[in-house]
Amino acid sequence: MGVYAPLLGVGPGPLWGSMGRRMSSCALSPPLSSVSFLFLLLLATPGARAAGYETCPVVQPDMLNVHLVAHTHDDVGWLKTVDQYYYGIENDVQHAGVQYILDSVISALLAEPTRRFIYVEMAFFSRWWHEQTNATQEIVRNLVHQGRLEFANGGWVMNDEAATHYGAIVDQMTLGLRFLEDTFGNDGRPRVAWHIDPFGHSREQASLFAQMGFDGFFFGRLDYQDKLVRKERREMEQVWRASASLRAPTADLFTGVLPNNYNPPEGLCWDVLCADQPVVDDPRSPEYNAKELVSYFLKLATAQGQSYRTNHTVMTMGSDFQYENANMWFKNLDKLIQLVNMQDVCTCGLIHDSSQQQANGSRVHVLYSTPACYLWELNKANLTWSVKEDDFFPYADGPHMFWTGYFSSRPALKRYERLSYNFLQVCNQLEALVGPAANVGPYGYGDSAPLNEAMAVLQHHDAVSGTSRQHVANDYARQLAAGWGPCEVLLSNALAKLSGSKESFSFCRYLNISICPLSQTSAHFQVTVYNPLGRKVDWMVRLPVSEGLFLVKDPSNKTVPSKVVELPSSDNPELLFPASVPALGFSIYSITRMPVRRPQARLLQPRPQKFGSPVLSIKNEYLRATFHPDTGFLRTIEVLDQKLVLPVSQAFFWYNASMGDKQSDQASGAYIFRPSRAKPFPVSHWAQTHLVKTALVQEVHQKFSAWCSQVVRLYPGQRHLELEWTVGPIPVGDKWGKEVISRFDTPLKTLGSFYTDSNGREVLKRRRDYRPSWKLNQTEPVAGNYYPVNSRIYITDGKMQLTVLTDRSQGGSSLRDGSLELMARDAAAGHRLLAEKELLAPQVVLAPGGGASYHHGVAPRTQFSGLSRELLPSVRLLTLARWGPEMLLLRLEHQFALGEDSSRNLSSPVTVDLRGLFSTFTITRLQETTLAATQLRASASRLKWTPKTGPVSHPTVPRLDPASITLQPMEIRTFVASVQWKEDS
Amino acid sequence: MGVYAPLLGVGPGPLWGSMGRRMSSCALSPPLSSVSFLFLLLLATPGARAAGYETCPVVQPDMLNVHLVAHTHDDVGWLKTVDQYYYGIENDVQHAGVQYILDSVISALLAEPTRRFIYVEMAFFSRWWHEQTNATQEIVRNLVHQGRLEFANGGWVMNDEAATHYGAIVDQMTLGLRFLEDTFGNDGRPRVAWHIDPFGHSREQASLFAQMGFDGFFFGRLDYQDKLVRKERREMEQVWRASASLRAPTADLFTGVLPNNYNPPEGLCWDVLCADQPVVDDPRSPEYNAKELVSYFLKLATAQGQSYRTNHTVMTMGSDFQYENANMWFKNLDKLIQLVNMQDVCTCGLIHDSSQQQANGSRVHVLYSTPACYLWELNKANLTWSVKEDDFFPYADGPHMFWTGYFSSRPALKRYERLSYNFLQVCNQLEALVGPAANVGPYGYGDSAPLNEAMAVLQHHDAVSGTSRQHVANDYARQLAAGWGPCEVLLSNALAKLSGSKESFSFCRYLNISICPLSQTSAHFQVTVYNPLGRKVDWMVRLPVSEGLFLVKDPSNKTVPSKVVELPSSDNPELLFPASVPALGFSIYSITRMPVRRPQARLLQPRPQKFGSPVLSIKNEYLRATFHPDTGFLRTIEVLDQKLVLPVSQAFFWYNASMGDKQSDQASGAYIFRPSRAKPFPVSHWAQTHLVKTALVQEVHQKFSAWCSQVVRLYPGQRHLELEWTVGPIPVGDKWGKEVISRFDTPLKTLGSFYTDSNGREVLKRRRDYRPSWKLNQTEPVAGNYYPVNSRIYITDGKMQLTVLTDRSQGGSSLRDGSLELMARDAAAGHRLLAEKELLAPQVVLAPGGGASYHHGVAPRTQFSGLSRELLPSVRLLTLARWGPEMLLLRLEHQFALGEDSSRNLSSPVTVDLRGLFSTFTITRLQETTLAATQLRASASRLKWTPKTGPVSHPTVPRLDPASITLQPMEIRTFVASVQWKEDS
Repeated sequence: MGVYAPLLGVGPGPLWGSMGRRMSSCALSPPLSSVSFLFLLLLATPGARAAGYETCPVVQPDMLNVHLVAHTHDDVGWLKTVDQYYYGIENDVQHAGVQYILDSVISALLAEPTRRFIYVEMAFFSRWWHEQTNATQEIVRNLVHQGRLEFANGGWVMNDEAATHYGAIVDQMTLGLRFLEDTFGNDGRPRVAWHIDPFGHSREQASLFAQMGFDGFFFGRLDYQDKLVRKERREMEQVWRASASLRAPTADLFTGVLPNNYNPPEGLCWDVLCADQPVVDDPRSPEYNAKELVSYFLKLATAQGQSYRTNHTVMTMGSDFQYENANMWFKNLDKLIQLVNMQDVCTCGLIHDSSQQQANGSRVHVLYSTPACYLWELNKANLTWSVKEDDFFPYADGPHMFWTGYFSSRPALKRYERLSYNFLQVCNQLEALVGPAANVGPYGYGDSAPLNEAMAVLQHHDAVSGTSRQHVANDYARQLAAGWGPCEVLLSNALAKLSGSKESFSFCRYLNISICPLSQTSAHFQVTVYNPLGRKVDWMVRLPVSEGLFLVKDPSNKTVPSKVVELPSSDNPELLFPASVPALGFSIYSITRMPVRRPQARLLQPRPQKFGSPVLSIKNEYLRATFHPDTGFLRTIEVLDQKLVLPVSQAFFWYNASMGDKQSDQASGAYIFRPSRAKPFPVSHWAQTHLVKTALVQEVHQKFSAWCSQVVRLYPGQRHLELEWTVGPIPVGDKWGKEVISRFDTPLKTLGSFYTDSNGREVLKRRRDYRPSWKLNQTEPVAGNYYPVNSRIYITDGKMQLTVLTDRSQGGSSLRDGSLELMARDAAAGHRLLAEKELLAPQVVLAPGGGASYHHGVAPRTQFSGLSRELLPSVRLLTLARWGPEMLLLRLEHQFALGEDSSRNLSSPVTVDLRGLFSTFTITRLQETTLAATQLRASASRLKWTPKTGPVSHPTVPRLDPASITLQPMEIRTFVASVQWKEDS
Repeated sequence: MGVYAPLLGVGPGPLWGSMGRRMSSCALSPPLSSVSFLFLLLLATPGARAAGYETCPVVQPDMLNVHLVAHTHDDVGWLKTVDQYYYGIENDVQHAGVQYILDSVISALLAEPTRRFIYVEMAFFSRWWHEQTNATQEIVRNLVHQGRLEFANGGWVMNDEAATHYGAIVDQMTLGLRFLEDTFGNDGRPRVAWHIDPFGHSREQASLFAQMGFDGFFFGRLDYQDKLVRKERREMEQVWRASASLRAPTADLFTGVLPNNYNPPEGLCWDVLCADQPVVDDPRSPEYNAKELVSYFLKLATAQGQSYRTNHTVMTMGSDFQYENANMWFKNLDKLIQLVNMQDVCTCGLIHDSSQQQANGSRVHVLYSTPACYLWELNKANLTWSVKEDDFFPYADGPHMFWTGYFSSRPALKRYERLSYNFLQVCNQLEALVGPAANVGPYGYGDSAPLNEAMAVLQHHDAVSGTSRQHVANDYARQLAAGWGPCEVLLSNALAKLSGSKESFSFCRYLNISICPLSQTSAHFQVTVYNPLGRKVDWMVRLPVSEGLFLVKDPSNKTVPSKVVELPSSDNPELLFPASVPALGFSIYSITRMPVRRPQARLLQPRPQKFGSPVLSIKNEYLRATFHPDTGFLRTIEVLDQKLVLPVSQAFFWYNASMGDKQSDQASGAYIFRPSRAKPFPVSHWAQTHLVKTALVQEVHQKFSAWCSQVVRLYPGQRHLELEWTVGPIPVGDKWGKEVISRFDTPLKTLGSFYTDSNGREVLKRRRDYRPSWKLNQTEPVAGNYYPVNSRIYITDGKMQLTVLTDRSQGGSSLRDGSLELMARDAAAGHRLLAEKELLAPQVVLAPGGGASYHHGVAPRTQFSGLSRELLPSVRLLTLARWGPEMLLLRLEHQFALGEDSSRNLSSPVTVDLRGLFSTFTITRLQETTLAATQLRASASRLKWTPKTGPVSHPTVPRLDPASITLQPMEIRTFVASVQWKEDS
């Protein structure tokens, strides 16, 4: 994308919140201890150089080689939907049609064998590929084999790096790279990662790329000050050490900053979308410009080369949706190459003053190349490269222009994406556990692929980022919804098979707004709760019901406690009962409405709290939260068993969105956050409160204004406080754009520092008004300190730590010591959303009960686990999914960072025994692969680079033993398993 | 072009005028007598059907066949210059690059063998062709051979039909068609003429096309009322009988009106320049539209078919500069064809209600076709067609929207074009007369080709029409000027050889503004006057000099009378002397300044005329013109020997250009003429006059205003009055756009009729507020009665006739009986221009004299004729030009219409004996060809059509006898001659 800046819209806000979770034992905890790296095993791939560079063009060793990279940047949705871009619909909105681009590029490559092109987005390429004839496919295979068509990046999309969760990144890259692997074999495997457009770059992204086997990484956007410094220091290219846990060079990635984002140099854009003058090489034409052009190009190339260290430099010749008529570009590039290289052999030619040219040292050779071939030359240069250990957030392309708004844009879509990730994992797991019977069964054809593709699309840097147009965001949601359908069929097939009962399943997609016709109207129904985690989970089920009393029975037909709660914020009473679900399995609960009417409702009726009334508080066995009697705001959080008390004031504020001012025209928008002044306005000075106290939940309902409310909640047994808030519709009658934040203020002495996660995985330390790699000239004291918060943000004084976990990506900061804030933005209408404790929350499926038997004569099963034993807490089952006929993809992850949890030893290496682990299938063959499952780990290799920090060793890969899969902190191991499903499962 | 409407600019005006000339004996003459057609010889080509249709696609006899014609319309200059269009420069002004169009179309044709395309403009195609590799050329030859690439029209440009002279039309068509003939042989010969964009259609154009061998003609623009009537009557296609002199079917041309100008139907434009939705045939896509599209197309095709008579109809799938990315168009057309024709075989498919479809009779078959293949189906239908005998002027595309402004737009360019035609004929003739020595000689490389090409470009319908942007008009002038250079070299080589003296020739290109350094500064110089006519010419030479007396000697060294005249309108005195020049030859005059100072200047000083002074008049032996003593305006013209007196008041007026009004938004512009009211304002009510009377000229200089003046002139021996006027700069300070006219008012009873020429050849009768083929609803009483005046306009009462000849194309009308007017428009700054009597005026070349001998030892020659005998008055040597090595192109023309001149019998058939006619070469072989010289006349054939007026006979071609070339009235005969130049010439 280029920048599209719609008018600022600030609308109703979403639900968010939940503190604690995976972070050791509780929200308040001792700080991270520093642990040495010595205990790590060696994970790096073998040292042989990666293949794939044999087809690269010849360069001139004694000249400046200018690598022209012909490319198109095809957003998988932005101003238009994916289908509109593919077909070239609504070309009056934006002229772009990917089908034509690919048609055209193939023709142009065939026309002239020296031409090269790269393609990136598999969401488009695979669609195009399936429309081609066998003959065309064969032609394309040849072009790929010859290196004339090269794939870069190769993910389904070019994902965003701020708002994406690492699990979804791995999935989308796997989907794209697998298409390439299946279609082109090794020829099609991208050697370079290529994120030319995302608006800032996360360290985790680089780590994942490294683990996928990429030899290098190129991107376009970084802070303008950073870029200037790098050009000056000739640090546009260096080694990025992208993990604090993984041993180098596992997460080392050679990274290059492109000279001109991803555009061609000024005046040299020869696309149908540009208006630069074409090369006119006929001296008889009044428009003849070849001589002038060559001279311009030589100056340009020489100047650019001075910011880079080798005698190679790259020019990206293409941009958004370019090459729809590839011939235009290539014809002019052909001429440029011919004209410039004519200078090589004949200095007496167009440029007459050859002596001057040599004096400038500007002997220039220009060639069609690719990012991989350019990278290969950099590698051959055999230099020692500087090392970067932080990330490239936030991104500013000029003073006052911080692209930190999109961290929070379209929170509803961001939430839907995260929910869909959860559902996709459930769908994948059940497909893997049940095998073909999940795909073809009594409910029709079940399939995880549509949701998998939709989720991959959502990772695009204008999708989950929230930067697309409204109708495109709607289409993303449509794609997700369309993906849910076949997964629901799959779940039905799977659950019927596993439970042995063909129920009429009901998925209640609108549980998030407390609508579920079955539970609200039926006198009897059953609730299947599926748990996608590798460990048993205890979870409070909440279902909308009509008023009444219910009898809830667990899988062993024992009655479990339940409550119907009426909430001040809703007309729908909710039934609560605690469920317990085994690892990778389900429990079925049976619910029956009792004939008694309205027994507890009156007793539990929440009452308004008055000023001066006794201190309002909620508590369970671990935590107590108190609220200020005057304001109704949260006042303290106590960890009861550790006797820790943290004063925490939490309230809502809003920044006035800038419309541009004297300092800069820059306004706040979907991409860019810019408040008109640094100090936010309070939404209100006090909150109206209601208390709900039952045996199964304690809640304080706070109403800050007509458009801003919050529920603070504690369930029994929980070590964290849940804050679920609803903002919207934000009043805009005063014409003041409002960026609403939730702010926590504590007395913690945080010394300007705070911590945010990187794509939900490792954590980076942030310092206010500071960047690790250059001396920052801060132009925006608020927006310039915002960072993406994918799953958590925390502050600590070394003794206590306040962590906020979020249920979707947001932007956050700490603008004063002890303070922490998160932003909500222009969301959809203000519906109450359910909070979730976990990324992989249990999936609830309802049914009326009494379905026909699946296995004739076999009694139904009310509880099931896909695992014969639970996984240890530090192990996450990142992926369990179908990979092919009788083949599964399996990823095991150590989800703790080095030294992160010293108290419970969760940061130690951990070993998993895969033998007999899964209850429904037997693994008959196991192969370990790189992260995206495109190469066997044993034979994969990457280019070697020498970092300035000293040489790294490239250890050999240990023999794979299914009985003993050891995971180091933050390590992900990926396996392709041949399996046989058991008959009786 | 589409319509580009710049703001109205009315600027200074040009020179024009001259009455009489070829029209019988004088400007006032008896009316044309009506003569029967019986005396005509049979000129038609033989009756065998033309070949070239073998490759046409298969059609469905029982269905409506929709012929899709994929085409691009590539203006040879309009908003951008020719080179800018070719290369795709200034794409922000208009996105258009012809080089890419041709690249792209060839690729797309190769990709799918059923696709077809037509190309039209050879100015572009030939340039592109010469840039291609042999391999590509071979591919293109194959495509042409297979009928997949078809050429339509095939002229260098698609010429304008209002402002073009027939000689230049024939030249430009010959240039383009010859390229095709040389490159592709018979495969490349266009079968149809294709004038989809010109703004109205002349009858002469159709006549010329017929004589060039075209089988049919398609165009797009005609009066909106005419079109409605034709659709109603199903007369969109008919036979155009395009000559009142030539015997049918010589000038009969089957002519079709395209349904939608030249654009695709609404919603079906799939070019990179359009934004219509592409075909989405994947039902899984949310953008799926195939079903809807097919249904729309079927309705559209059926409705369109109802305006045409056969079960075939045509759709032009393309427009201005489309197909730059041909794949876009073709890919969607492929899908459309597949989807629609799927209906043919399977009515149970997408359109479910098959019964309804049959009830509508809408069984539709759609196919890639070409104009020729469509024409071929029309021909095979074997119908009897209605006949049209008038023309398609003026063109209005809606009420108040008459495209009659461009008849007069850019008069300076129109004049330069006409002058260049004159010079090109001189250049061609001398190249033919002298042979290779004209090309390579002492002055370098002389060449007629650049001027020939430039003149061809000027015939484009946005060039000489005056409808291009200013910078493009400048570039047209540049091209002409660039073409003059090599012709000047050629003339120098030729004149040196023919005269035997290597003079330092000087061409004085600025003689039209009385600047010529040589004559103005030299005491002695010589003047070579070349006469391109087939008859001796007597001509008054006028040269700027400094004051003084001059001695002028003729070729035989006899003194001829001369005068130096000082003119009130100029600082430069002019030397006048009468020259006499033999046919196709030259006379050299020697000029010497005499030592006496200012002898006659004072005597001849013009004096201002006062009111009430005696009647002002000028006269010679044939004519007298008198001027009104009060107003100074022309009052009478008398033909002395016939004792005829015609009262003629002549003065200047201006129409206020409309800016749009309540009736219509239409403003006056470069294309469209629309006065705000029908009555023009007088420029002034009287003129200041000066009289110049010498033995060699009598002139009345009239000054009407600061920006409008005129010279009325009589030379001895002239049978016409010359009016040379200068308008400009027109004051625009009052914000009133001014359209200046010169109006002649007489008492002639003209009964609403007047006469204008068609491309300078045959004459058409016009009637005010009337159209011959439909009942006109007149919306613009002035603009709707304007017609193109290419060379003359006249009115007559049956006894007397007033004819005005023009020196360039203009628009004219007769808005009241006895009145006649001509319009001048937005010209360049008001310089004095020289009047010319003839289209082929003598060419003056100056030299200091005393050059070296060309043929060593041979005395120079001061007079020369290329003809051994003069041609008869009715014979024009239309073309004498180089055709190849030792080959010449020769066109002889009978320049009188049937019955036009009964008094001197000039309308009778005339016979020319070619044996020994030319003095410098011998014709060794003579072949007669069609008009454009692309086919031998004996073997050429055209499709036969049956007109409603009854069957026509197709006589055989008589044997060619060089001794007896008979020309019927208005007949042009074209010959290719092998020649040998004589050593001594």
